Amino acid sequence: MKKIFDVILVHNESKAETFLGKLVGKKPLFICTIGTTETAKIQSISAAGKYPEMTDYTPPADVELLLLGRCKCISGVPVTPEGIPTPALITMSALKLADIPALIASGGLKINPFVPFLNLGGSPGRNIRTGKAVDDVKEVIERARIAGENLAKTTDYLVVGESIPGGTTTTLAVLLAMGVDARQKVSSSMFGNPHELKIKTVEAGLRASGVKFGALTEDPVKAVSCVGDPMIPAFAGLVLGATGKVPVLMAGGTQMGAVLAVVNALNRDALGNVAIGTTRWIMVDKTADLRGIISKIADVPILAADLNFSQSKFDGLRAYETGVVKEGVGAGGAAIAAMMKSEGSITKETLLREIERNYEQLVGSK
Amino acid sequence: MKKIFDVILVHNESKAETFLGKLVGKKPLFICTIGTTETAKIQSISAAGKYPEMTDYTPPADVELLLLGRCKCISGVPVTPEGIPTPALITMSALKLADIPALIASGGLKINPFVPFLNLGGSPGRNIRTGKAVDDVKEVIERARIAGENLAKTTDYLVVGESIPGGTTTTLAVLLAMGVDARQKVSSSMFGNPHELKIKTVEAGLRASGVKFGALTEDPVKAVSCVGDPMIPAFAGLVLGATGKVPVLMAGGTQMGAVLAVVNALNRDALGNVAIGTTRWIMVDKTADLRGIISKIADVPILAADLNFSQSKFDGLRAYETGVVKEGVGAGGAAIAAMMKSEGSITKETLLREIERNYEQLVGSK
Repeated sequence: MKKIFDVILVHNESKAETFLGKLVGKKPLFICTIGTTETAKIQSISAAGKYPEMTDYTPPADVELLLLGRCKCISGVPVTPEGIPTPALITMSALKLADIPALIASGGLKINPFVPFLNLGGSPGRNIRTGKAVDDVKEVIERARIAGENLAKTTDYLVVGESIPGGTTTTLAVLLAMGVDARQKVSSSMFGNPHELKIKTVEAGLRASGVKFGALTEDPVKAVSCVGDPMIPAFAGLVLGATGKVPVLMAGGTQMGAVLAVVNALNRDALGNVAIGTTRWIMVDKTADLRGIISKIADVPILAADLNFSQSKFDGLRAYETGVVKEGVGAGGAAIAAMMKSEGSITKETLLREIERNYEQLVGSK
Repeated sequence: MKKIFDVILVHNESKAETFLGKLVGKKPLFICTIGTTETAKIQSISAAGKYPEMTDYTPPADVELLLLGRCKCISGVPVTPEGIPTPALITMSALKLADIPALIASGGLKINPFVPFLNLGGSPGRNIRTGKAVDDVKEVIERARIAGENLAKTTDYLVVGESIPGGTTTTLAVLLAMGVDARQKVSSSMFGNPHELKIKTVEAGLRASGVKFGALTEDPVKAVSCVGDPMIPAFAGLVLGATGKVPVLMAGGTQMGAVLAVVNALNRDALGNVAIGTTRWIMVDKTADLRGIISKIADVPILAADLNFSQSKFDGLRAYETGVVKEGVGAGGAAIAAMMKSEGSITKETLLREIERNYEQLVGSK
């Protein structure tokens, strides 16, 4: 597959190349949207936390890492049950190397971070099994839209990432409600991808809300309200507000499917200046199918940062090559933005060196 | 006094001219810092609300006006007891005419606005008579500093304004604690300036906190904690974070004295790239002395938008010429920024026409 600097043009190659061309040497703003959902506390559904109750702390700790270079609401950094560290390490390293400014936007949190964040009026999400997962979806989208519109005037382009444990399960639910069959296609932060558990959870949520497959194709607000998570309206609103003015790189894995479906249903014209930016690990993930999901929704390009940790001196980073974590906190998109801003002088090698430096300092030498 | 476009160089003329020169044709970001303090509910101390209890709604309503073009948390717009409308009308008109993006930063609010705002971890302020006016001052400054540092990377310069009823009284208190005798010098939103009431209130606060005149010259965090308001640490932190990278126009009247004193005490080098931007009404205010306050603190220039509503067709705007309201919500600084961004094509006349258009729509034809 074609590469520009260390960015792989994964899907929709000619559009991907045009999009990337607009980013060369330009100055982006990185926004990390965060939220929490009780869905993440279902046993064995998410690895974005040492144990289920810790998932409330993962998003605030991730964004503290981005803005402070260390976490404050927890000691150390967020880890999987096996101790593999958060992809926020990649994001913080990319932003630091390329001197890219960052803002945080909350869609609804159990625990607030000890850093400044945009309050969008949302609340933490409930377990989607209730069928009443998210409050005030329309209002959060509208507030995020206003923020996106204003922030788009300050920057050459936006990179929007996310941190919400349990987010691939809520994504599957929103996509099914909106008529996109993403079963067996969403990714996972876990070694194994617990597709059956996700599908069972989602089916319970759809049943509880009385929503059949595809019933909410034209009602994304209801789809998120019933079975989504609070990150989705925050992210979608930012895209809707910014995309008329500047390119938007949606930084994430299969969760981008739900955001894309919501944006597309609310404004069919919004996706002309949008691309998805992810990591190589998402593209080689045999348990998921980002391209399959995206191509069912809209004709947007997919880019992937060609990250490879197989030669890292740290076990916790080499583990990324075994298919754990893979993406999150906009890691892939932030890496792409750093490479494009520096016109290729930040490479996957320089990035890995910076990540290792931060890993050593924050996680230790294990 | 010398003018550049419709901006008066009020104080420190040569520095003022150099500073303005840096803004010509440049793209700013406007940030409105907001907060509330129980101090505003002392009878007859503030006109920033129809009656004392309404002052909790003035800052959120002001920023809704900036971002939505109308208020949501109240009907109509904030008014003085006599019905004179908020200076946010001026700010929104200037931002709209010059297409200047805006963000909101909260230092601590009783009522949250129905628009996105940066949460900086603060709480609403207590009556300064308690001597324990503001919590977490250091933390709010630090979070605002981080936001300022990141936002400075996205823009040519920052314009920071404020909305906090009761703010000139808390300013007087902080200045006295820090050794700047601003008695009889702080401005007021009221027709008469209730200096004696303010001094009595401030003296009670200083007594309650056991702080003598000038005792906290080197401890601005304690000065604000004892007798300040929650807007001050938010504003000061933004200035501290941004000023190393870009020019900062501090948009306000005599309240800028307290912010300036705090910034100056925390970093003596922070004020080299800072100016105060206000309105002509502050400069002609015989009951106050902005220049006198500022020159006791630091060698920064003062600029004033040459606004004049004497020919307006609306009573509520002509009233500004009688010495009510005068400034607030960064009105003067936003007007200056609009004039500079447009390289003079936005004049005081075009601005007044836009203000009248918005007045007619929002306030009516009275």
